[in-house]
Amino acid sequence: MQLGLSVSDSDVSSFTPLVVLELADDTKAEAITWLLNRIRDKQQNGGAELLVNQLLFPAQDDQKPNPNVFLVGSTLQRLLNGAEDVGLFKEFQDGTMRGFTYANRESFKDFNGEIFLSDAECQYIIKHELDTLRAKNEEHVPGYPKLKLYPGKSVVRRLQSKGVLIQYFPLHNKEDLKRLSFSWYKKFKLSFQPLDDIRHYFGEGLALYFGFLEYFTFALVPMALIGIPYYLFDWEDYDKYVLFAVFNLVWSTVFLEVWKRCSATLAYGWGTLSRKKAFEEPRAGFHGALGFNPVTGREEPVYPSSKRQLRIYLVSVPFVLLCLYLSFYVMMVYFDMEFWAINIYNENPDIATSILLFVPSIIYAVVIEIMNLLYRFAAEFLTDWENHRLESSFQNHLVLKVLVFNFVNCFASLFYIAFVMQDMVLLRQSLATLLITSQILNQVMEAFLPYWLQRRRNKKVHKRMRRLMGDKELPLLGQVQLETEMNTYLGTFDDYLEQFLLFGYVSLFSCVYPLAAVLVVLNNITEVYSDAFKMCHVFKRPFSEPATNIGVWQLAFETMSIIAVVTNCALIGLSPQMKAYFPESDTQLILIVVTIEHVLLAFKFILAFVIPDVPKHIQVNLAKLEFDSLEALKKRVSTHFLKKEP
Amino acid sequence: MQLGLSVSDSDVSSFTPLVVLELADDTKAEAITWLLNRIRDKQQNGGAELLVNQLLFPAQDDQKPNPNVFLVGSTLQRLLNGAEDVGLFKEFQDGTMRGFTYANRESFKDFNGEIFLSDAECQYIIKHELDTLRAKNEEHVPGYPKLKLYPGKSVVRRLQSKGVLIQYFPLHNKEDLKRLSFSWYKKFKLSFQPLDDIRHYFGEGLALYFGFLEYFTFALVPMALIGIPYYLFDWEDYDKYVLFAVFNLVWSTVFLEVWKRCSATLAYGWGTLSRKKAFEEPRAGFHGALGFNPVTGREEPVYPSSKRQLRIYLVSVPFVLLCLYLSFYVMMVYFDMEFWAINIYNENPDIATSILLFVPSIIYAVVIEIMNLLYRFAAEFLTDWENHRLESSFQNHLVLKVLVFNFVNCFASLFYIAFVMQDMVLLRQSLATLLITSQILNQVMEAFLPYWLQRRRNKKVHKRMRRLMGDKELPLLGQVQLETEMNTYLGTFDDYLEQFLLFGYVSLFSCVYPLAAVLVVLNNITEVYSDAFKMCHVFKRPFSEPATNIGVWQLAFETMSIIAVVTNCALIGLSPQMKAYFPESDTQLILIVVTIEHVLLAFKFILAFVIPDVPKHIQVNLAKLEFDSLEALKKRVSTHFLKKEP
Repeated sequence: MQLGLSVSDSDVSSFTPLVVLELADDTKAEAITWLLNRIRDKQQNGGAELLVNQLLFPAQDDQKPNPNVFLVGSTLQRLLNGAEDVGLFKEFQDGTMRGFTYANRESFKDFNGEIFLSDAECQYIIKHELDTLRAKNEEHVPGYPKLKLYPGKSVVRRLQSKGVLIQYFPLHNKEDLKRLSFSWYKKFKLSFQPLDDIRHYFGEGLALYFGFLEYFTFALVPMALIGIPYYLFDWEDYDKYVLFAVFNLVWSTVFLEVWKRCSATLAYGWGTLSRKKAFEEPRAGFHGALGFNPVTGREEPVYPSSKRQLRIYLVSVPFVLLCLYLSFYVMMVYFDMEFWAINIYNENPDIATSILLFVPSIIYAVVIEIMNLLYRFAAEFLTDWENHRLESSFQNHLVLKVLVFNFVNCFASLFYIAFVMQDMVLLRQSLATLLITSQILNQVMEAFLPYWLQRRRNKKVHKRMRRLMGDKELPLLGQVQLETEMNTYLGTFDDYLEQFLLFGYVSLFSCVYPLAAVLVVLNNITEVYSDAFKMCHVFKRPFSEPATNIGVWQLAFETMSIIAVVTNCALIGLSPQMKAYFPESDTQLILIVVTIEHVLLAFKFILAFVIPDVPKHIQVNLAKLEFDSLEALKKRVSTHFLKKEP
Repeated sequence: MQLGLSVSDSDVSSFTPLVVLELADDTKAEAITWLLNRIRDKQQNGGAELLVNQLLFPAQDDQKPNPNVFLVGSTLQRLLNGAEDVGLFKEFQDGTMRGFTYANRESFKDFNGEIFLSDAECQYIIKHELDTLRAKNEEHVPGYPKLKLYPGKSVVRRLQSKGVLIQYFPLHNKEDLKRLSFSWYKKFKLSFQPLDDIRHYFGEGLALYFGFLEYFTFALVPMALIGIPYYLFDWEDYDKYVLFAVFNLVWSTVFLEVWKRCSATLAYGWGTLSRKKAFEEPRAGFHGALGFNPVTGREEPVYPSSKRQLRIYLVSVPFVLLCLYLSFYVMMVYFDMEFWAINIYNENPDIATSILLFVPSIIYAVVIEIMNLLYRFAAEFLTDWENHRLESSFQNHLVLKVLVFNFVNCFASLFYIAFVMQDMVLLRQSLATLLITSQILNQVMEAFLPYWLQRRRNKKVHKRMRRLMGDKELPLLGQVQLETEMNTYLGTFDDYLEQFLLFGYVSLFSCVYPLAAVLVVLNNITEVYSDAFKMCHVFKRPFSEPATNIGVWQLAFETMSIIAVVTNCALIGLSPQMKAYFPESDTQLILIVVTIEHVLLAFKFILAFVIPDVPKHIQVNLAKLEFDSLEALKKRVSTHFLKKEP
């Protein structure tokens, strides 16, 4: 009983708990028995063939913890089998990445080494096997006549959508975590992040985010270095920014193109670049009349895409437009406040009124954050209501909604100041206020607040545990208890969004406020630490996500860089320096600026077209893989012929 | 001897000649013997396992025809085997398209029907087998110590590059050709072209071209219909074109997006959409030091890509720029001539001088055609000299070079007239002259001239044949003789280029000269007939090309449609109508036009992003295919496990 486990499996020693499954504490016993049987059942019988044990707590009287917590593990054999199922790519003996097959297992590098499958991979495989555990002939979940099932329905998804399965998440590995967090953020260093270790522990999706964060920060350094002297020596000569704007333009294009190559290199090394996506199951919240999926032929809820389109175009789009209008309205109120504060200051310039000058900007920055937050809830509700079949399509629609609103909310006032009011001093001032306020808010909201809450919770759990079991060492029990109550990490969405907005501040307006890049670099350095910390200690461990690239965010950043070309050209056109060249005619100036802009845009597209997205040596490796598989196929075919017609 | 064949194969009756192989008439006997043996040899021994017979001519004394002409055929078994080799997709019993495998042959629709593999497919398979016939341990071609070989080198490519193999081409099938040409162009009809039959006879690449031609022509009809009243009733009100320009913009975007879907539908039905491209062999002209291909690991000439890049950027790019400069220079000369002619006319206006007014335009149109032709030769030479490894990369570089030059050559003068001279009357006149002249020239150069030459040649061959053999019927012998001397069709390049330029005239400037669309529609209707005719009767039958889409041309057309947005917006801005709205300030007008242009461009990108490139039902079919193959793999894996661990 030392581990607090009721071990129902025969090979006690080999059971390493990997995933925690928490059912509602009032779940009926027959449902639990049925679920455990299905999970343990052999694959031939349609089971998941995994090991699963209940976590048993010693008897107690007050504040009983949830008894329905289960630990899921697996035999190595089953994991290898599952690795082939999910199409895992591993390093082959010859150094290339190849799809793992059980038959060829010996030909993979390190197969007989210490760890062939990382924890994150094992947990991903278990998640996949649980997700694809399908109902057989059961009409409903035993004990729950209302929880209808039909052949082929994912059991876990159904239990999840009805609240019987509260959550399932991977366990932290304390040893690995200690090692990782030491090399990641505990020692102060100037070296790169241990991306491979991050990937091993948290999976490819998160590692790519940290890779991007690092790359973006490094890419900003030259800009920050140019920005400092600009700021120090040309403080009042804000018309000297033409050169800076041109640099800005080239930088933002090259930056994104080179990132694609970096990301391809990382993804290739991690084996996700050529990995085929498995068929996506409908998301847990998806509902509709029961029909047949045209692809799999399986029974599945079907929701007509025309209805979804109607919901999107008749409700979501108007709602988003309304919110944008509201955001504009708030912006105009802000400008009124700004004028009002300036007037008061002009009438009676003293310390109190000079502080008052900053008040509207600060209020506006806070209001923006609040509006972003509220809108975010609305967007999630709406996107859920749109009833997307796939998680990926849900995410894309959510990202799009949130992006557009955040963009307008954060940048509308700056555009207004820059191009309608044409007041570069005010622009610089607003930019600084916005940048600094939102950074402080972000760091607090993102890491320190959750950390503080988490610490309080930790103490409570520890106290409870001590009360419960005296001084007995119950590491696993305590750990599971703790992690069950940790917050869930909701994915990289917010982290990317923050970087996207920072990229916007830098690429759109940094020529007016050259210190922007410096501030962003400083922010990102702390961001690496706070993000790393929050991943390791604040949130539950997330399931790894086999990402190939940063997905829709690449598109978002590229769109931003196109807008940056337009904005920078317009700023150049507005600069007194340029105007001095064409003293008599605005028309000529505008025509020249527009021409330059078009040339730059064309150049940008040509550049994006000419720079290959995947580095040469990886292209060769991919071609090799393709070639080998074709050759293998041919060989199989010709031996087949030889056998038939000797 | 009736067929004029020396039949060396045992099953005379089954031999259908499909491909003609012509070696130089002084080829050494031992080389011929060796080649024929390699072609006939079993696949296990590295041969192509095809049937090949020499075409024997009766003895004669004068004008001996080339004796080294061979006919290649194949057994059905070998063709089916080859169909799997090249990855042919065929319609399955359930109506979806699947990769053909010999093992599942009975499950394919029409497998036991009259024709499962079309002639074009059989010929494509034979071409593939000939192309991949590789040298074994021969150090050189027997009889030619200088014709070095190394293991893995394509024998046919080597013989071709050294001029021993003069040509190999597929034979026409007289029956099918008669049927096809009747349904295609002989009966006057308003129906669509028989695209499926064209594809059956000529392959997917050419069928897609004719599909595009037809689609483009139909898409132009509404524009032509709007253009006629514009032309008839508003002859002098050339400021009424704002509406027309807007229509133009929307049309050119939607047109290309919808074509992508049409092309995907066609390609899916023809089985090329999901077909994997086989590994590409180096082109015949490719040379370099012997090394190892990093992908296949085979011995192969290797040419460092850095050297190629140097050749491209240090020689080709400057050369192209120089040619562009030259083209500009010629344009300026043309304008000088134009002014000179106008001056003469103004001084002395009579019939002779009024004819003189048209002379510069006509001369310029002819000069443009000549320059295009000369440049084309230079571009081919340069691209060949750049030494591209792959035919596809060679083609892309050639297309790019020719496109840029043709674009500048054809449109520079129009841009100059429109935006520098801002003379809309002259623009309209030049457009009309260019359009009509180049159309007439094209039709003559493309169809009538080759046809006339071909007829002369035909008569000569017929006469010779009659002299040779008296009145004996020798259909095959005569046919091979005739086709050997026909011109080779050089691919769809020129045909697409012509359509590209026509698309340019219409989308860029048709708001100024609304009759452009009408002229292009008329041109394309005759174009269908003349192209069909030239394919059937002027040129050798080409090998079919398994094209998925119109490739680089889609990109070219899309680029043109982006340029069209810019041009049309500028033309709108220049229109007297718009100028009337902003009488006092040009600046405001320009700013508004530029804003509208940006909005339109953004809208265009969003539209391209929102409209899926592949229609829904085909996406479902493709997903189904993917899903089934994954499931099959899984099943294979689990039975494998069951067998191993019972």
